[in-house]
Amino acid sequence: MQQVDFIQGRTRMFGIIGDPIAQVRSPEMITWEFQRRGVDAVLVPLHVPAADFDGVMPALMRLANFGGFVLTIPFKARALVFADRLGLQAQVLGGINLLVRRSDGAWSGDMLDGMGCVAAFEERQIAIEGQSLMMLGLGGAGGAIACAMAARSPGRMRLHDLSAQRCAFIKSCIERISPATVVDIGPPTVDGIDILINATPVGMLSDARLPLDVQFLPQALVVFDAVVMPEQTPLLALAERSGCAVVRGREMMLGQIPRLVDGFLDPDSVGGELGQLGRQSVV
Amino acid sequence: MQQVDFIQGRTRMFGIIGDPIAQVRSPEMITWEFQRRGVDAVLVPLHVPAADFDGVMPALMRLANFGGFVLTIPFKARALVFADRLGLQAQVLGGINLLVRRSDGAWSGDMLDGMGCVAAFEERQIAIEGQSLMMLGLGGAGGAIACAMAARSPGRMRLHDLSAQRCAFIKSCIERISPATVVDIGPPTVDGIDILINATPVGMLSDARLPLDVQFLPQALVVFDAVVMPEQTPLLALAERSGCAVVRGREMMLGQIPRLVDGFLDPDSVGGELGQLGRQSVV
Repeated sequence: MQQVDFIQGRTRMFGIIGDPIAQVRSPEMITWEFQRRGVDAVLVPLHVPAADFDGVMPALMRLANFGGFVLTIPFKARALVFADRLGLQAQVLGGINLLVRRSDGAWSGDMLDGMGCVAAFEERQIAIEGQSLMMLGLGGAGGAIACAMAARSPGRMRLHDLSAQRCAFIKSCIERISPATVVDIGPPTVDGIDILINATPVGMLSDARLPLDVQFLPQALVVFDAVVMPEQTPLLALAERSGCAVVRGREMMLGQIPRLVDGFLDPDSVGGELGQLGRQSVV
Repeated sequence: MQQVDFIQGRTRMFGIIGDPIAQVRSPEMITWEFQRRGVDAVLVPLHVPAADFDGVMPALMRLANFGGFVLTIPFKARALVFADRLGLQAQVLGGINLLVRRSDGAWSGDMLDGMGCVAAFEERQIAIEGQSLMMLGLGGAGGAIACAMAARSPGRMRLHDLSAQRCAFIKSCIERISPATVVDIGPPTVDGIDILINATPVGMLSDARLPLDVQFLPQALVVFDAVVMPEQTPLLALAERSGCAVVRGREMMLGQIPRLVDGFLDPDSVGGELGQLGRQSVV
């Protein structure tokens, strides 16, 4: 059974922390990236019930053979307080999806979610510059995507989130990152939109809903869904029926994997003075 | 990379908790047994620093995708308080090496260490009945081995441990389990001994010491060492140079693996009224 030999007592451990956890893809994808690099390390799912997070997190950080964690729904914002140092994206967005133990024993956090989405679009050679974007959901992932997208100078961004305060905050972040981008806050729409981005949890697992109230989508629209389980969300199914190009949550995760593994293997590089977008983007 | 596909978000998780952790073999061996049975589950190493154990343990028990834990050095005794129910061996010995979440959410513990040692001897067809045993070390593992061996009716057992209280306690356990066995407490010896059992940590990792002060061993002696890393301990190296038959800690672990996995997959069978030796042995 060659395929289990690599989990040994000395194997370096990393975890992904979420609630629920069954839908996460990081255990395969990040472990595969460790293996590809020849590193004896695995990433395992850690299902922390939301009500227990604040009590369990410090204990997980005491595990001496764990070098760091990926944080996913619903913990990206709540995890912020456990980082001694924060990258600039984490500071701007108020959330982290990566927490690593530095060589001095302190913990650094950063938010890499948005970088994966931009990488997925670049991989597909789908332009962002000058385009008109509709952002659905501005939580940990959505805010990160909005800021990373903003750094690619879209022409216009329409923002929607259940929290008006969150909309206003992300609008201010985008305006700092890309002053030339026209930002407005309003209900979901596809009118005049080039790229539709769902970063809400609507459509996850057995949720059959769409994140916006439409019967069809314009064929020229590019549709991205951050949900990774199922791969084919109701929104992406509708988009394909409408003839749209789709970009999947899995592609965003794939785009982010090398950055997360870089952080795990070189933790002192995380949470420095400059964030992932670089100083010029957000100062 | 087929060999990492089986660690997924939905994979059932189990852990081995110890300090240190690099030497443990359970991650490969128990994961392999899960795979052999077609169960999507893995066991991973969890290095809990000894000073943090009491605080970290309750948090690990909150992880909703972890169904149970193997406890190893130095936690077998300290883990006892985290079990709501205890098997009879655990009650007698005051320690557990298995802790599982029952279907009602309560936790059951039991001590299976000794069963693995007996299984290893039986696998080798080495008789225990009527033989004269020297027991070195009567901690969690040593006490369990002594009680499990006693249930196979050896003729004589000589006990040695740094704690006189522990010696007296295990002597009383053995006398309940096997009244016909002559039990005495005294310094390590191989005079008149058929089977030498090391259950002390002496010889672990880079420890070059022997657990008793000898230059050679009688060729007829059978030598067992509970230490699993390295496989070839100084004691076993001396035994092989002396022409003795040796039984390795790995063989004890192998003998115990199916019982541990039985407990993980059928947690309600653990910690019942009857212990692993059966009521007739210890009541």
